[in-house]
Amino acid sequence: MNFEYSDTCKDYLKRLRAFMDAYVYPNEKTYSEQLAGFGTDRWQVIPIIEELKEQAKKDGLWNLFLPESEKGAGLSNADYAPLAEEMGRVPWASEVFNCSAPDTGNMEVLARYGTKAQQDEWMTPLLEGKIRSAFLMTEPAVASSDATNIECSITRDGDEYIVNGRKWWSSGAGDPRCKIYIVMGKSDPDAPTHSQQSMILVPADAKGVTIERHLPVFGYDDAPHGHMEVKLDNVRVPAANILLGEGRGFEIAQGRLGPGRIHHCMRTIGAAERALELMVKRLMSREAFGKPVIKHSVWDQRIASARIDIEQSRLLTLKAAWMMDTVGNKHARGEIAMIKVAAPNMALRVIDDAIQAHGGGGVSADFPLAYSYAGIRTLRLADGPDEVHERTIARLEAKRWLNEG
Amino acid sequence: MNFEYSDTCKDYLKRLRAFMDAYVYPNEKTYSEQLAGFGTDRWQVIPIIEELKEQAKKDGLWNLFLPESEKGAGLSNADYAPLAEEMGRVPWASEVFNCSAPDTGNMEVLARYGTKAQQDEWMTPLLEGKIRSAFLMTEPAVASSDATNIECSITRDGDEYIVNGRKWWSSGAGDPRCKIYIVMGKSDPDAPTHSQQSMILVPADAKGVTIERHLPVFGYDDAPHGHMEVKLDNVRVPAANILLGEGRGFEIAQGRLGPGRIHHCMRTIGAAERALELMVKRLMSREAFGKPVIKHSVWDQRIASARIDIEQSRLLTLKAAWMMDTVGNKHARGEIAMIKVAAPNMALRVIDDAIQAHGGGGVSADFPLAYSYAGIRTLRLADGPDEVHERTIARLEAKRWLNEG
Amino acid sequence: MNFEYSDTCKDYLKRLRAFMDAYVYPNEKTYSEQLAGFGTDRWQVIPIIEELKEQAKKDGLWNLFLPESEKGAGLSNADYAPLAEEMGRVPWASEVFNCSAPDTGNMEVLARYGTKAQQDEWMTPLLEGKIRSAFLMTEPAVASSDATNIECSITRDGDEYIVNGRKWWSSGAGDPRCKIYIVMGKSDPDAPTHSQQSMILVPADAKGVTIERHLPVFGYDDAPHGHMEVKLDNVRVPAANILLGEGRGFEIAQGRLGPGRIHHCMRTIGAAERALELMVKRLMSREAFGKPVIKHSVWDQRIASARIDIEQSRLLTLKAAWMMDTVGNKHARGEIAMIKVAAPNMALRVIDDAIQAHGGGGVSADFPLAYSYAGIRTLRLADGPDEVHERTIARLEAKRWLNEG
Amino acid sequence: MNFEYSDTCKDYLKRLRAFMDAYVYPNEKTYSEQLAGFGTDRWQVIPIIEELKEQAKKDGLWNLFLPESEKGAGLSNADYAPLAEEMGRVPWASEVFNCSAPDTGNMEVLARYGTKAQQDEWMTPLLEGKIRSAFLMTEPAVASSDATNIECSITRDGDEYIVNGRKWWSSGAGDPRCKIYIVMGKSDPDAPTHSQQSMILVPADAKGVTIERHLPVFGYDDAPHGHMEVKLDNVRVPAANILLGEGRGFEIAQGRLGPGRIHHCMRTIGAAERALELMVKRLMSREAFGKPVIKHSVWDQRIASARIDIEQSRLLTLKAAWMMDTVGNKHARGEIAMIKVAAPNMALRVIDDAIQAHGGGGVSADFPLAYSYAGIRTLRLADGPDEVHERTIARLEAKRWLNEG
Repeated sequence: MNFEYSDTCKDYLKRLRAFMDAYVYPNEKTYSEQLAGFGTDRWQVIPIIEELKEQAKKDGLWNLFLPESEKGAGLSNADYAPLAEEMGRVPWASEVFNCSAPDTGNMEVLARYGTKAQQDEWMTPLLEGKIRSAFLMTEPAVASSDATNIECSITRDGDEYIVNGRKWWSSGAGDPRCKIYIVMGKSDPDAPTHSQQSMILVPADAKGVTIERHLPVFGYDDAPHGHMEVKLDNVRVPAANILLGEGRGFEIAQGRLGPGRIHHCMRTIGAAERALELMVKRLMSREAFGKPVIKHSVWDQRIASARIDIEQSRLLTLKAAWMMDTVGNKHARGEIAMIKVAAPNMALRVIDDAIQAHGGGGVSADFPLAYSYAGIRTLRLADGPDEVHERTIARLEAKRWLNEG
Repeated sequence: MNFEYSDTCKDYLKRLRAFMDAYVYPNEKTYSEQLAGFGTDRWQVIPIIEELKEQAKKDGLWNLFLPESEKGAGLSNADYAPLAEEMGRVPWASEVFNCSAPDTGNMEVLARYGTKAQQDEWMTPLLEGKIRSAFLMTEPAVASSDATNIECSITRDGDEYIVNGRKWWSSGAGDPRCKIYIVMGKSDPDAPTHSQQSMILVPADAKGVTIERHLPVFGYDDAPHGHMEVKLDNVRVPAANILLGEGRGFEIAQGRLGPGRIHHCMRTIGAAERALELMVKRLMSREAFGKPVIKHSVWDQRIASARIDIEQSRLLTLKAAWMMDTVGNKHARGEIAMIKVAAPNMALRVIDDAIQAHGGGGVSADFPLAYSYAGIRTLRLADGPDEVHERTIARLEAKRWLNEG
Repeated sequence: MNFEYSDTCKDYLKRLRAFMDAYVYPNEKTYSEQLAGFGTDRWQVIPIIEELKEQAKKDGLWNLFLPESEKGAGLSNADYAPLAEEMGRVPWASEVFNCSAPDTGNMEVLARYGTKAQQDEWMTPLLEGKIRSAFLMTEPAVASSDATNIECSITRDGDEYIVNGRKWWSSGAGDPRCKIYIVMGKSDPDAPTHSQQSMILVPADAKGVTIERHLPVFGYDDAPHGHMEVKLDNVRVPAANILLGEGRGFEIAQGRLGPGRIHHCMRTIGAAERALELMVKRLMSREAFGKPVIKHSVWDQRIASARIDIEQSRLLTLKAAWMMDTVGNKHARGEIAMIKVAAPNMALRVIDDAIQAHGGGGVSADFPLAYSYAGIRTLRLADGPDEVHERTIARLEAKRWLNEG
Repeated sequence: MNFEYSDTCKDYLKRLRAFMDAYVYPNEKTYSEQLAGFGTDRWQVIPIIEELKEQAKKDGLWNLFLPESEKGAGLSNADYAPLAEEMGRVPWASEVFNCSAPDTGNMEVLARYGTKAQQDEWMTPLLEGKIRSAFLMTEPAVASSDATNIECSITRDGDEYIVNGRKWWSSGAGDPRCKIYIVMGKSDPDAPTHSQQSMILVPADAKGVTIERHLPVFGYDDAPHGHMEVKLDNVRVPAANILLGEGRGFEIAQGRLGPGRIHHCMRTIGAAERALELMVKRLMSREAFGKPVIKHSVWDQRIASARIDIEQSRLLTLKAAWMMDTVGNKHARGEIAMIKVAAPNMALRVIDDAIQAHGGGGVSADFPLAYSYAGIRTLRLADGPDEVHERTIARLEAKRWLNEG
């Protein structure tokens, strides 16, 4: 047993931190100002992002996320985890390193399950940071906690598939650079439960695709990324756009969601760590009732809980990543489910306390706390709500004792 | 002991509910659309509000909040509580009945502590719903949990006072109808701790007053109400604008904040009640894993906790109101502190569960939940953060046993 | 609405408190010493209890619990509640006033559903405090959360019923004065679900009755009361011992458990109130890091939470009692379920914090806290576990919107 | 980074589990019966323990706890942790392997700080399992959260020290094999705060030592181990009995408590793990409302929380142990404080849910849950209450930003 990060990881982490210090933190204000400068026309590329992307490429901090592949940095999940955490300290930082959702998950799908042609057309520009992508799974009309509820249809018609459906929470589909959607739908409603679904590539500019509206998150539009409601009305795509084959959608989803979930958790740890830093600094800088607020012991407990909870979640995330590396995503599914539940709930507690420590400032835009809270609150719903992962965990526990009675 | 509402209360409640059903719920969409229709120029009066105000006046549902006064409906706090709860089901409803913060608290200050001239000039148009007001207390530079930290200065200069300072979270100051501020500041920094502060009336259009920016709450601007940062730069007002006299600011604050806090709590109960209703309806309407989501017993516990917590908070709010009526605000300060802590924390739990029940819809604008959550989150900070009220409660407990050792 | 206790209640409360001060608190040590003095032969009547019972009768503080009856003091549930709370401050105090479980519930069953003969034989001596009783419902072999699981059989055989089964948690059956059991069993397993059960009177000395062992609660034997496992092996009782008639067991259970549950809640509030008192006093009396422990603000939050939670639970208990008085036990079942969940959970939190405040003393017998914790922990299981009551509450909520969809 | 246990650890773990299966679990009943067989004379050696000790020695599972020493098995803390966890599944198991508190901590003190003579006289028989020991630190008269409160005096008088004081929670002092106490007291009240205390060896049979009573924990006497109140009345011991030198008590305490705390945490994880196992098995074996209780999704959440919390606490414990091995106890003090708070609180939640799953059985002696709960509840108080460790953690956080302001 060894809790020390590998030399590779430490080297990347050192360079990544230097990059964050040199280019990201100093530009948090720039980012906000450039976005604010757009006025109401917010669905535009933010210049500082594109600038920093070039810098990150130059500094060898690019595509760090893709494990077991010569396409990215070739880092293991365990080596990538501390890097993702570091990026998570600033909501938009991971994009700078081409490590942001949902592109990472989509690139991973294409790398694992895509044909050479699919990879050339979509994965390559994604890896180069030239385009972006979206993942269209959740639907407004049904409980998405049960994936078998999906109603979007994917029907073969000669050399094409026709896609009909309505999706929402299609994150990133608001970005003008977003060119390709991976769409989950039912190709055979009469097949066995887990063979009904397929995934298919739908270009964002295909005929019949309409972005109907954006969905705010606690008042934030998350522009230019955005969470869109997308109508797919008799959208026709070549049959070659199917991923892996008809009826393989569920299988791909399982493969895709593992890494996606764990990446979110890593970033979430970083957001919590930053909230704790802000909380402590704030409490040290203000006085009440004759002494610095941090000297009031009611905060001892909250700071201690935050530190304990962050440490514990980090360790569980690292272990889940290490298991993905060593025994594979499938055998790590219990750990992935655990951390998917644990990390966002932990971070929400820490950030909420940090908000409390900041008084009115905490809920405003003067600090990244409220925005961070809102974003992480969605993680208790996205990629399966807590309840579904808890169900998975409970079933694994029951299975251990099944033959003992 | 009798838990039944009085006949007066029941009569008002019946009429208020009829009004809500007839005019408020059907116009929730209108409100959103009118506000959205303003585009970026959001700091405007929303027409439906003014329309419904006229209707409410006509229906005798006007100024219901002012206890022991012939100026409003003359209801006791206990009779008003269930009405405020009802209004709290829709974030903007209380304004329709001229019962919204911070005007209610400000009118109460003027009614209790204002001179005839002050009342004629400011209270009368407030009671008529012709103007609105703001309360400038919190400051960005100091921990507002300790009221003695206030730095804004109020200095006598001949027949005038000069006010200098910077305030934030001046709620309602964004409204074009907002004409008058009650400002808390220090008139004598060398006086005993609780005699240093004064309150003074400052017209919104006084020279030297600048609204520097609005503060968002989790991404919501709360337009046209707004939470403003206001600079007071050598603002001169007539000496007659002082309230009650120099050095009486703390005393007025104590008097003002009691009712203000309890009104917030009443409305908060209503918001929680509505969230529970939405949660249960949503769970009944969706299926997962072969049955309505509400049949999954994990929700039993959350629904039961919500119902229990709402009932308990309502009872404590009613008791606090009843004590204000029977033994006075001062002797009810323990109960007011209790409910000030209990109600928002309770509502946040209920709303958070309701969000979880709604999936992605819960954090969006399709339901009032996320907006309600954000607003109520500020109540754990406004009018004294939780920690200050907990301190008050703990001290009252200690006092009970002081002579026993 | 009126939160003031009635004059009757206030009069009783005043006299009860005087009695507690004069006879109960001063004898807490006596009680412990007399019990300790028994050595290993602990299943004996504790003399101080019998002494104080005579005093309570003399002082007109006897049988305060029985509502709507000339047999006791004739108090309403609402008037009785504050008295039961007061008694709950000392674990054994309610027996002094002949107000202790399970006798109160059993007397209520006999008063409501018993024949004249049954009342004469068993209720009268119970009301006189001459004998005690037990209620045999829970069984070791099945999940008692689902009452239909009961396996004990009650079979008619001529002029007799034959009872066969095994019960546990038969509280009070350890007491040498315990002479009569009310036993729940199945008389007709083929009847509709809620008509299968009957209740029958079984004398403690009937042939075939064996007390097999006592069940400790967190190491406490609760002697001489005790929680017994009782075997009923072909026990024959006269047919006249059936209560209300065959198949009416479920109906009686519903009637019995309402008041029983609420009495427990009332006492639980008293136990929590006492724990808070002990907590505050302890924190005031000890120093750490240069000041009284109570000055460390981490305790502000706990004391405030305790005070808030106690107040809220008390109000909900009072409301439930008031509803039982005004609309009847059946219509109050939502409120009874709520407080059945809320009160013990609340008290456990308060007592646990009080234990923490006492350091090692808190878990020992030097203070009543650990014993109180253990006893109240059983209330989350007895008379239906939390989960069953939460289920009831959730179903009532769903019912409200059933026709709205 | 590598989460796999070392080969050494895995080998020991395999043999330890085999031992537990062969000798410990099958004798849980034996242990209870032998203890019960003592009647009231409970302060006796339980024969099965001595039998199994011989077996453990024979099987090379002896003194596994002592790191960096040739005296025990020579395991690192990280290698020992999983073994201690395994032992923690049965409350008395660690004694079988001579790994039980407070002996382990005391042996470690003697190994690190004892003279050759002290080691020969006391450490050797302790390592051989021939005698037992106690650690006398906490006092009934003062808040033990602040170690500087200690009042026991250690005064030099010629060739002797005179010890005067009253200690309580002297665990293990009830055991007839307990021959030696390590006593903490003040040798120089006028010295700087952390140089006032000394530790001294006091034989249990020294003149002036009186065991005044045992302190129950929630009704359990923990015989024959016991938690004793000990009076030290002019106890004279040779000057050579001082440990390390006058004024070094605080230093030794710091050194001793680190490993002691972490051992408790390891065992606590094991107790939680066993509670989870019992919970799941119980839920699988009972039916309610037409299906196994485990199919009611309210339990999904609890089982999932238990699994998540246990995993997280285990990882943090392992990391703390690994840091003790790699950077030393002093630099690991943050991690030790964290896990000292996290593990017992985690285990209490898990065990409490497990109790709930067992119904009445959960609080009784039919399952090890209530006893386990009581024992672990004391860990939130022993070796520094939660509040003190939270204070330590908070201070370390503040220190990180001290120079940044």
